Amino acid sequence: MKIGVIGLGLIGGCLCLDFKALGHRIYGIARREETCTQALKRGIIDHASTDIGTLAPCEVVIVCTPIATIVPMVAALAKVLAPGTVVTDVGSVKAAIVAEATLHWPAFVGGHPMSGKSEAGLDAAESGIFRQRPYVITPVDRTDPNAVKTLETLAGQLEARIYHCTPAEHDRAVAWISHLPVMVSANLILAAMNEPDDEVLALSQQLASSGFRDTSRVGGGNSELGLMMAQYNRDEVLRSLKQYQAAISTTIEQLEGERWDAIARTLQAAKEGRTKFVREPPYGPNSITGS
Amino acid sequence: MKIGVIGLGLIGGCLCLDFKALGHRIYGIARREETCTQALKRGIIDHASTDIGTLAPCEVVIVCTPIATIVPMVAALAKVLAPGTVVTDVGSVKAAIVAEATLHWPAFVGGHPMSGKSEAGLDAAESGIFRQRPYVITPVDRTDPNAVKTLETLAGQLEARIYHCTPAEHDRAVAWISHLPVMVSANLILAAMNEPDDEVLALSQQLASSGFRDTSRVGGGNSELGLMMAQYNRDEVLRSLKQYQAAISTTIEQLEGERWDAIARTLQAAKEGRTKFVREPPYGPNSITGS
Repeated sequence: MKIGVIGLGLIGGCLCLDFKALGHRIYGIARREETCTQALKRGIIDHASTDIGTLAPCEVVIVCTPIATIVPMVAALAKVLAPGTVVTDVGSVKAAIVAEATLHWPAFVGGHPMSGKSEAGLDAAESGIFRQRPYVITPVDRTDPNAVKTLETLAGQLEARIYHCTPAEHDRAVAWISHLPVMVSANLILAAMNEPDDEVLALSQQLASSGFRDTSRVGGGNSELGLMMAQYNRDEVLRSLKQYQAAISTTIEQLEGERWDAIARTLQAAKEGRTKFVREPPYGPNSITGS
Repeated sequence: MKIGVIGLGLIGGCLCLDFKALGHRIYGIARREETCTQALKRGIIDHASTDIGTLAPCEVVIVCTPIATIVPMVAALAKVLAPGTVVTDVGSVKAAIVAEATLHWPAFVGGHPMSGKSEAGLDAAESGIFRQRPYVITPVDRTDPNAVKTLETLAGQLEARIYHCTPAEHDRAVAWISHLPVMVSANLILAAMNEPDDEVLALSQQLASSGFRDTSRVGGGNSELGLMMAQYNRDEVLRSLKQYQAAISTTIEQLEGERWDAIARTLQAAKEGRTKFVREPPYGPNSITGS
């Protein structure tokens, strides 16, 4: 199959790598000539250009640009692609993108391969990162069924775990498990940073260990991505944050009232509840815990 | 030196192991005969008993029992130890313990070796877990200076990083970096569990990845320990939770007002602030991140 990949960052690069290895013919598009040269040199694409007009022969085009530029990119593609060409994206929010992109191109189908690395960019691209990871496909009523089938086939070739849901369901689910954690975690760092006693602040910084490290990780990560999630999934992030705020208020009331049974039940429920979200070996890479 | 260790769980067991290897003579105390036999068999103690009366010859006694039983244990030790015997503990809160324990025994000095593992119990004990980890020593005005010196020497032999502060400073610092994260993290799990749409809940559970895993880890951990922290460090946990709640409210207001610049500054500040608390290699064991 002739596959176009727009945006040769980490995810775009990884898709090129895997699809090329699967025997597809890859047309890469990057903003900078340098990136084109680099991708060609690494042998992960067959054609490279800064011009999306070169994607005309493609049967599938995967938009791997930042969230804000996905819809404009689909609108631009509509002027150069042959009718029926399947277009998909890899954005981590779906409702805001899918509604508009589908208007521009009926053979657009929203996708979200949920994998990644802490390093960004083409240099960090490696093969197999989508294997056994979720690949969410979010068709809507007017989505061309062929586009869905084609994306299912490609995600299946990556050996991803395929899920189907509406863009709204996707955005609500990722608000809980991806976007809310960023806000929860960033505010933990902010609150701790604002300790007014300088000696206590310095001591906290010295004593912080794996517990603080893990709880603060996603909040201290890519701030541009965090902002994008907030902007493009605002309503769901707000909804989850308000429910979270209510839970925090309940904990405060329980502590103020010294209702230890209630606190014990809360912590026990959290412990049991977590096992539904997290499947991990009992002693993983995080087995050393601070006390 | 003759060292008594009361409570042969993970921390007690690790201390026995390291101090025995350093050439000290170890007197172990456990509640159950079985644990005594097991510790003797493993060769990590020289004497074992269920009776603290057997600690009379010791120059140092380390109380490694749960927080709630430390003060009663020091009171009981006061009836059997020779005057001047140094007594310390390993509890993860200090103010509530040190004030009372010092009244029972002037040569008591509070300690908190900040290391651990996710496994509990003597079976999980291993050598060297205190090396390069913080060991906080919390003397008060009436603490016998000899007790402080002795504990410094012993912590130095473990190659721990020694910190001195007041019990209040310790409790405030650990509220930020250890106890608040537990509450923040447990409430994330609870809020997510309470999603009313069953399909979205199931999808969240399927899609949850390293971001949710890490942010929820300490909240889904040892619930008894979490309760103990809340009970014995209530005021500081409450104080940090209220400051955290205010930060969450600010984020909600910023999202409601679509004040993206403010959100961007928050996330950027969190990213920069985290580097003061967490010193980790750029690509550690958590380098794979969900998107």
